[in-house]
Amino acid sequence: MCEKHAHHSVMPDYSHWGHSFGHLSDENYANDARIYMDYNATTPMDPEVVEAVTVAMREAWGNPSSSYLPAVKARDIINQARESISRMVGGKPEDIIFTSGGTEANNLVLHTAVTHFWQSRVAAGREELNSTHHNDTAALPHLIISNVEHDSIRLPTQHLQQEGRAEVTCVAVSKATGRVEAEDVVAAIRPNTCLVSIMMANNETGVVMPIKEICQRVRAVNKQRPQPRILLHSDAAQAIGKIRVDARDMGVDYLTVVGHKFYGPRAGALYVNGPGVASPLHPMLFGGGQERNFRPGTENTAMIAGLGKAAELVNTHLSEYESHLWDIRGYLEERLLAVFGADKIRFNSRFPGSDRLPNTCNVSILGSGLVGRRVLATCRRVLASVGAACHSGQVDRPSCVLLSCGIPEDAARNALRLSVGRSTSRQDVDAVVEDLKETVDVLERMNQ
Amino acid sequence: MCEKHAHHSVMPDYSHWGHSFGHLSDENYANDARIYMDYNATTPMDPEVVEAVTVAMREAWGNPSSSYLPAVKARDIINQARESISRMVGGKPEDIIFTSGGTEANNLVLHTAVTHFWQSRVAAGREELNSTHHNDTAALPHLIISNVEHDSIRLPTQHLQQEGRAEVTCVAVSKATGRVEAEDVVAAIRPNTCLVSIMMANNETGVVMPIKEICQRVRAVNKQRPQPRILLHSDAAQAIGKIRVDARDMGVDYLTVVGHKFYGPRAGALYVNGPGVASPLHPMLFGGGQERNFRPGTENTAMIAGLGKAAELVNTHLSEYESHLWDIRGYLEERLLAVFGADKIRFNSRFPGSDRLPNTCNVSILGSGLVGRRVLATCRRVLASVGAACHSGQVDRPSCVLLSCGIPEDAARNALRLSVGRSTSRQDVDAVVEDLKETVDVLERMNQ
Repeated sequence: MCEKHAHHSVMPDYSHWGHSFGHLSDENYANDARIYMDYNATTPMDPEVVEAVTVAMREAWGNPSSSYLPAVKARDIINQARESISRMVGGKPEDIIFTSGGTEANNLVLHTAVTHFWQSRVAAGREELNSTHHNDTAALPHLIISNVEHDSIRLPTQHLQQEGRAEVTCVAVSKATGRVEAEDVVAAIRPNTCLVSIMMANNETGVVMPIKEICQRVRAVNKQRPQPRILLHSDAAQAIGKIRVDARDMGVDYLTVVGHKFYGPRAGALYVNGPGVASPLHPMLFGGGQERNFRPGTENTAMIAGLGKAAELVNTHLSEYESHLWDIRGYLEERLLAVFGADKIRFNSRFPGSDRLPNTCNVSILGSGLVGRRVLATCRRVLASVGAACHSGQVDRPSCVLLSCGIPEDAARNALRLSVGRSTSRQDVDAVVEDLKETVDVLERMNQ
Repeated sequence: MCEKHAHHSVMPDYSHWGHSFGHLSDENYANDARIYMDYNATTPMDPEVVEAVTVAMREAWGNPSSSYLPAVKARDIINQARESISRMVGGKPEDIIFTSGGTEANNLVLHTAVTHFWQSRVAAGREELNSTHHNDTAALPHLIISNVEHDSIRLPTQHLQQEGRAEVTCVAVSKATGRVEAEDVVAAIRPNTCLVSIMMANNETGVVMPIKEICQRVRAVNKQRPQPRILLHSDAAQAIGKIRVDARDMGVDYLTVVGHKFYGPRAGALYVNGPGVASPLHPMLFGGGQERNFRPGTENTAMIAGLGKAAELVNTHLSEYESHLWDIRGYLEERLLAVFGADKIRFNSRFPGSDRLPNTCNVSILGSGLVGRRVLATCRRVLASVGAACHSGQVDRPSCVLLSCGIPEDAARNALRLSVGRSTSRQDVDAVVEDLKETVDVLERMNQ
């Protein structure tokens, strides 16, 4: 399996970061010994994606809104990308709204839920004037998220709460499964709940959340209560390109697509199940009418072309990608156990009964002096992280996500997030494990 | 002058659109007779910009927030772009906030003004509790814009008004000058005015607005009234790369930068004079902390690299670009007069005493049956438009911008917006004027 993938043309070798910086003269970048294992932070663009972006920049630079014929080329590219992306997530082309990235897509969903709540309230208020039935629900929209969401969900909900514009419940993941359990979501529902937003897979642990089950349970609740119904969103940033993602099968109203997590460009999209019809969508921006007014602004044809190409690759090769990632991550964990021994290794996201992304290994090498950041800073070869890249500037403290999952504090402090990619090879794994071993030996000697 | 520019290496020949589509097999795109004169709708990317984007995609794909060394490369690119853009608009690097484009930048300014108004109100309200002085200003923030703003200013203000969240005054441009006059802006100021947003140059007429004078007058008003002061914004989308733009010299708090109007990528930036310190800035999005929390979301390193390169080209070559555009536009208008005769030609944006962008020729070929859209649809070679690209889908009616400038309705109906670019040559002009002449002859014969 590994051999097959090592030679597969759709898996360019980007794992040696130093190499991809090779023809820059700066010596800092020229250390070709580095091995990238931080694919959950970002991925390189697939060469086919780079090509699609470049061709679009050169040949489809017209304003897609212009009426003359050559601008049609830009529109064609955009439509084709919309088609590929919709196929990737199991939707229809008209369900795809292009955004600048995942942060915008996530904020757009929260904005929509809150706006929809108020508009429904206003409509309901009018009806009540002619009715004796009084509405006894709370005044503010209530949002349910998990306690392991990405900052682009966590912080906007916090902001809405601080501004007095929404109530928020952060449902804790189960310490037994690492997942947000559907019954805990249902238990958090209030009469004024307007949105449930749970990520499809966690970026640090790789644990896959039971979105389909959550949707089924919430939809059952919806049937038994008055409008507005509870909307369902999942941020699929980490799932796409690694496991099958089918928005309609899961039953979500919204799904966030983030290009740079699946070898695409820094661009995103929001899947909306029937935008403005089956599922409400309230724009945050107003302007020239692009994206059917849901997201105006001259279309970034080149980025959209790249996003479409990245989706096309996933559509064609997902099962290969998936099995390669499984294979390599399996080998990585096997080598870690073999080299360090079972007593010294703690896998932080192996929860019985829970699925994990095939590429993510959250591991602690136990022992004092082996804090994750220190280990990585000392390593000569591996490039990885201890958690979300956006938090990399923060002071040394254990990951909240791991603590939430019930990982003991000293293990959490030592955690490393190793995430492998389409081109990571067994040789890379051998080199990384050796690197870690040498580093740990050095640090333990220093600690004595 | 023209000869010199025709051979200048920084002015690639992108004017023959058909050519740039040349190696696509589709016959629709392969008509290499087309000449692009719609540079106000969008520009091609300069080859150096394409190269900068491509290099960044290949070599600086790391997450700029990651802490390991190679991610520094991405940060370096971003910082260098910030530096080039700030130099282009006369600001400091820390004044530049990257956005997905002009629409987002404009919406962000309006959002900031309204939020700042309310926050100042809340603060003032607290003070009043200990004071006998009562605040007699109106309850809502008041925004002043012009009646010829781009939809990305016009529509969000309209939305705020419809939602009951702001009052809006659209100051009419003078029919004598085509400009928004400073005294009309000052006359529109109310006690609750919190923002004046006037574009730097109009996209249809090319008329340059007296932003510096407006800022001086508004700042004088600010000195004589209590907080919050009136904030000042200018959308410089059409001005950058064509004329000198100096935000600090003009005295604006905010300036919108749009890459694809100056041979850069579909990305934008907002200049803010001291974001969060001298000038308030309230984010619309919340997430991973990028752009000092003012605009989170993993940075689009490649687009930012291209934007920086496009700014660098402007910094180096602006005076050449400007004089080339002047020369070519002058030749175009000269040829139009010579070929059609002064009685048949009406230049719609030559206002005495007003400056015009050097590249924009808004012209009507007078006569029945010569409606702008029809002329352009019949032309064999020229690619141009009758107004903003975002409006190209609209039914045939004269441009509101032209009517606002006092252009008579039948002239406005016949208007063509011809906008030339860095590589437009005198030969292109000759061909376009010939094309227009043949078209007009055909249409007039049909009309008899």
